[in-house]
Order: sequence, then structure tokens, then C-alpha cells
Amino acid sequence: MSADDEQRLARVALTWLAEPGTRAVHRLVDRHGPAATLDLLLDGGSPDGWLHSTVAARTAAGDARAVAAEALERADRLGARLVTPDDEEWPAQVAVLANLHLPDVTRRVDVETAPPLCFWVRGSWPLGEALDRSVAVVGARAATGYGQHVATELGYGLAERDWTVVSGGAFGIDAAAHRGALNAGGLTVAVLACGLDRPYPMGNAALFDRVADTGLLVSEWPPGAEPLRPRFLIRNRVIAAGTRGTVLVEASARSGATQTARRAIYTNRVAMVVPGPVTSAMSVGAHDFLREFPKARLVTGLAHVLEEVGRIGADLAPLTRGPQRPADALDDDARSLLEALPRRGAMGVDRLAARAGVDVRTALRKLSLLEELSMVVRRDGGYALIPPSRPKRTTAATTSGST
Amino acid sequence: MSADDEQRLARVALTWLAEPGTRAVHRLVDRHGPAATLDLLLDGGSPDGWLHSTVAARTAAGDARAVAAEALERADRLGARLVTPDDEEWPAQVAVLANLHLPDVTRRVDVETAPPLCFWVRGSWPLGEALDRSVAVVGARAATGYGQHVATELGYGLAERDWTVVSGGAFGIDAAAHRGALNAGGLTVAVLACGLDRPYPMGNAALFDRVADTGLLVSEWPPGAEPLRPRFLIRNRVIAAGTRGTVLVEASARSGATQTARRAIYTNRVAMVVPGPVTSAMSVGAHDFLREFPKARLVTGLAHVLEEVGRIGADLAPLTRGPQRPADALDDDARSLLEALPRRGAMGVDRLAARAGVDVRTALRKLSLLEELSMVVRRDGGYALIPPSRPKRTTAATTSGST
Repeated sequence: MSADDEQRLARVALTWLAEPGTRAVHRLVDRHGPAATLDLLLDGGSPDGWLHSTVAARTAAGDARAVAAEALERADRLGARLVTPDDEEWPAQVAVLANLHLPDVTRRVDVETAPPLCFWVRGSWPLGEALDRSVAVVGARAATGYGQHVATELGYGLAERDWTVVSGGAFGIDAAAHRGALNAGGLTVAVLACGLDRPYPMGNAALFDRVADTGLLVSEWPPGAEPLRPRFLIRNRVIAAGTRGTVLVEASARSGATQTARRAIYTNRVAMVVPGPVTSAMSVGAHDFLREFPKARLVTGLAHVLEEVGRIGADLAPLTRGPQRPADALDDDARSLLEALPRRGAMGVDRLAARAGVDVRTALRKLSLLEELSMVVRRDGGYALIPPSRPKRTTAATTSGST
Repeated sequence: MSADDEQRLARVALTWLAEPGTRAVHRLVDRHGPAATLDLLLDGGSPDGWLHSTVAARTAAGDARAVAAEALERADRLGARLVTPDDEEWPAQVAVLANLHLPDVTRRVDVETAPPLCFWVRGSWPLGEALDRSVAVVGARAATGYGQHVATELGYGLAERDWTVVSGGAFGIDAAAHRGALNAGGLTVAVLACGLDRPYPMGNAALFDRVADTGLLVSEWPPGAEPLRPRFLIRNRVIAAGTRGTVLVEASARSGATQTARRAIYTNRVAMVVPGPVTSAMSVGAHDFLREFPKARLVTGLAHVLEEVGRIGADLAPLTRGPQRPADALDDDARSLLEALPRRGAMGVDRLAARAGVDVRTALRKLSLLEELSMVVRRDGGYALIPPSRPKRTTAATTSGST
């Protein structure tokens, strides 16, 4: 097995040992890399008591490396591939999750929101490219006809204007958004909370097949993984962080979909909310969200959504992509740091500051900004460049699979 | 005729010479009093070219004093009374209109938003007391069943909790709000844009009779005045400034009701908006308003409205009135100034500052604050105290008419 394959296998094994998002695991991987982290955890060297018991419980049930190898084989048979941060198609923007800190949290799923270690992907689009220009449309499963109508229209309109429609594949709003995008002949991505061989819910099986045919089915969990309840919430951080913004269409009080919008707020994405009749229980969560978060934007249709997501990044025009880049808006120090970064690999802050000719304090501040803009990523104890996404998509056939 | 009667007659005549809200007239009255202003204008001494031609046009059509005297007689036959700032029942909070400056205005009605010179009132409640604890509920004439349902519920709930429901007596949302309050056996005030002898629209005649029986019909225009189009917008500033907050229930794009909410924002009242289906043309203006004004609050029902209006002034409890007064929250300088003010009549800033022992700059700043809190009013080139409203309402029978 090559060193690269060993690292990839280790990511899969780690995801099996502890649920995606576990901060302690992410910190170890950040410092030592996946393979060394796996060794460390399997040797009982977890720095965290809770993680220690979780790992012990899992290893009592099976051999982590063997499970991972089997998952990779199973994915192969399924026509799915593993995507890791070392792959060109990795969606770099999910790195923002390293800095996601939700306030007033009481549940583990609200604390363990670290970036994913890997994705399983079915479909021919490169994952990063599919998510580069994407909007999430999420909402209630028990949606009303009104909500489904709005979600379908939004999915259709966004797809028609070359935006990828991301959702969670659930009944109701999610399914309506995917369908809208598919009907427009556009690109849609379903981010699941279980193995790609058993997409949940079963009732959407035909929809999932259509999504995989022309878009992507994505999951952090290996083939065979069950759609356990907490996983939906773990998954939601990826929908929020992987897109430019999240549109909440309908949500009852305390709905899971409002949690996705909440994660969008705290990862500095745009959280957009479609209002509804105050007499509808399915709009209570949406209205509560608008009242609670002044940063959330009320949107009533496609034009408003385009206006909001167009503000972020290089693209302001609704139909075509301009030549402008986020770098155009940076100040001199930030631009110097960006130019000082090596084309490949990471570099420590001290050396970077020296190369750029700025002091270390300024360097740290500007690098945080660049990280927020998804232009650099913290890695291997330093910072690395995130290559700008390709300016124009070509057809699926010529850019497909890189695993 | 007594000097007092002469001043009252002059106010009526002035309202006939130039539409209510005319800033130039208000400034003159502020400086010279109504009778002297009337003399000045009738002698052709208007400082403003436009006002000069308006006065000339009106005086060519009739004798201002004779018209005013006739209006007073007509009101008497109608059972209506004239209320001026010299009357105890004057709603002092409309003084805030002196400081209302709407941004980006192009139309005269958006500029001429000075406080009223007088009100015509039909009904037994003292006007100031009726408006003291009031909320405006306004919206589209072509309201949907949804909007009318929401407005009726709000009117009912507010009235049930001893809030006066103020609206404009129009078809649709206005009528629904009045009806809700009447059904709860509560107090409702219709602020009209025409003479009280010809309440508009005619189709609401039965409603107007019910309002006058248990609440109040109010207008700035004398009996006989026609409901001309611009008058509705002139009237809206009184609905906004006379209440603690305005709830916009349904509004099409560029509806007149959104102008009331806009005036509420710029007079530092709470502007509240009820959302609706994004598929409804009757909610477009409401949603636009929420998007345009971050200070506007989305409300979905009575609880939210009570929460918003309860924040202002002394009353936070929804059912009973506490003994707290706004004065409790003032700082030492403001309280000194308040105590330095004469019980009756106005006093110049210099003398006031000396009495209170603060410098003139501070005095001016604190007096502005007190003016915003409707505790003092600028009058006769100085400041005058506004007596705090009576703490508890008694029945209509024992507190009726003071004219």
C-alpha cells in the first residue's frame, strides 16, 4: 500500500472510530496527519477521555483498518469514490468549520462541528467544482403545498442560472428543491447522513438515482452506515459550510432545518429565510429565525436569493461569471501574504510573515481573513493556498472523476 | 369672542388656508401663536412663496374666519368637538412630528409633516387618554381573507388587553382591525382624512357609527372637508406619531399603509410587520418593508406586538399598568430640567438652564431627549411641560368630553 493510500484509508478508519466532526480527532489529524492519528488512537493514546471510550467501544466491535478497506471496496462496486483534502476536487470551503463555534450549546452535535475528514461521492462532477457556486435550499419534511411550490421554483431558478442546488434529500422541501433543479436540467447535490448504498429515505430512491445520474450524492459516512438520528445534524454543518448561503423555506418550531441556517450564520454564510402565513405551523420556525437573527435575510424569491449570494465572492452577475476575483478586494498586506504562500504545501506563519514583509501579528490577522474568504487553509501547522476554482465549468464528461 | 376662542378659531382657519402638516404655518404658529399667524397670512405676509399663493387661492374662495366659524357650528350640531394643544385632552406625543424628516423625499406630503394644529373629535373618550396606550393596525384595502383574519385577531387581542386600536377606517385591514377591537368591547379610534360628517368610505358608515359610539372618530379636517387623495397620506403621519407602534398587516408594493409604517420608523415608534405567503401580491409591500428597514420587527401575532410596544414607556406588563413612570429612567440633568419647568406655560432655554443648574448646551440636548419621550413640548419659543397621562382609565361616562 502506498503512503498516500495509507493516509486515505486512515481517514476512513478515523471516521468509523468517531463520528465526523469530532474536534479532538480533527486536531490530531491537523497536527500529525491521518495515519499517525489512527496509530495513536488505536494504541489507546487518545488525549480525550470521551474519545478514548468511543474508540475502545468501536475497536471491540471490529478492526478499524479492515472495516475501512471493506468500505473502500464496497464503494468501488457502487461506483462511488473517496474524496479527501489531498484531492484536487476537495471543497476547500468546508475548512471554515474549524472556526465554527455555536453559542449556548448543550448538545454534543453542536460542539463537535470540525471539518470532515473525507467525503464519499457518487456522480461524475468534481465535488469542489459542483459546490463552488452553490446554494442550499432546506426546510421541513412535513412541508405544505406552499413551501414545496416555493422550494421547487427556487431550485429551478437557481439551477437555470448555473447555481448548484444543495439539499439533504429529505421529504418535503429538500426533495422539492432537488426536483426543481433536475427539472431545469441543472446540477444538484444531495448531502446524506448515511452510506451512499442506502440513501435515506427509501421513498426518495428514484430521486436519488436521478441526482446521482446528473449531479452528486455525497456523504461523510462510508457505505453501509445507517441514518442515525444525530447524523442529520452532524451532516447539516456541511450543507451550511459547503455552500455560499442557505435558504430556509419552511420550518416548524425547533426544526432541524433551522439548525442548518444557524450553522450558515456562524460560518459567515448568508442565511436566507422565506416567510409564510403566520397562521401556518410550518412557518413558525422560519419566522422565529428571522426574529432571532438580525443577520438573516428575508427573501421572497429567486431575485432576492441571487442578490444575496451574488454579493459574496467574485460573482455578482446572475447569468455569467465575471473576470473579477476576491483577491481584487484585498489590501496590500493580505495580497503580499497571498503572494508569499508556496504554490504547493503549507508554510509556517513566521516564515510567511518574513517573506511577505509584514509583522507576525498582522500576518496572523490577515491570514484569518484569507481563511474566512476560503483563499487559504490552515494545514500542517502553517497555511496553504487554496487554488481559485476554475472560471468556467465544462461538461461533466470532460471533467469527471479524479479518484 | 374671548382671546382663547380667537386662538381656537384661528387654528381652524389656518387648517383651511393650508393643508395640515404645512411646516411654514407650524413654524409661524410656534413663534407667534395661531391668531397672530392668521393675521399675518391674511395680510399677505407669508414668508414662503408657495404658502403665499395657497393662502391667496383660498382667501379668493371665502373668508377664512367665517369658514372656521361655520365649521365650529357644524361640528356642534354633529356632536363633535375641537381639540387643540391648549386642551387637556391634546395627545402630546404628536409633537414628535416637528422633528420628522423623511429621507429621499420628492413629494410635498413627505415634506409637510408638521404636527397638527387641531383635531375634530366625535366620541366621549378624552383624545389624549384614548391614544396614550395605543397601537395602530394598518394595511391594504384589497386585503385577503388571511390578512383580514390576522388584523381582526390583533384588534381583538389588543383591545382585550386594554390597548386602543387605531386605524384609518378604510376597507380591508383597517376595518378588520376596528371590528376586532369593537368585538372585544375595547376602544378603537378611526383617524379620518375628511370631515367627520362625511366619513369615508361610505360603505363603512355602520362601522363608523359603532366606532363613534364606544370609541373615537378623529380628523384634522373640519366638517364638510372632502377625502382628497393626498389627505390620506397627510393623515398617516398622525396614525404613526399618535401611537406607540404601527403594525402593517398586508400591503401591496408601494401601498399607502407602508407609508404609515415608514413614518413610524422615522418618529422612533415601533414599526411591526406581519409576513405572509410570498406568493401573495398583498404581502409584497410588507416583505419589502422588512427587507428595507432593519429596525422593522417581524411579528406573527399578539404576543410579539405586546412584546414590542411593551418595551416603550412605562408599561411592560400586558394586563395592568405599573406605577413606574418614564421619569424614573432619566439622568440627573434631565430630571433637574424637568423640575425646573413651570407647571403651566413655556420657559426659554437660557432661563431653564440657569434654574436647573446645567449649561445651555446640555440643556438643549436633554430637552430634545425629553421631547422625544413626549415629556416636554417646544412651544412659544421655549419648552413646556406635558402633564403625565392619568394612570388608570375609568369608564367613558365619568371621563367624557372636556370641550
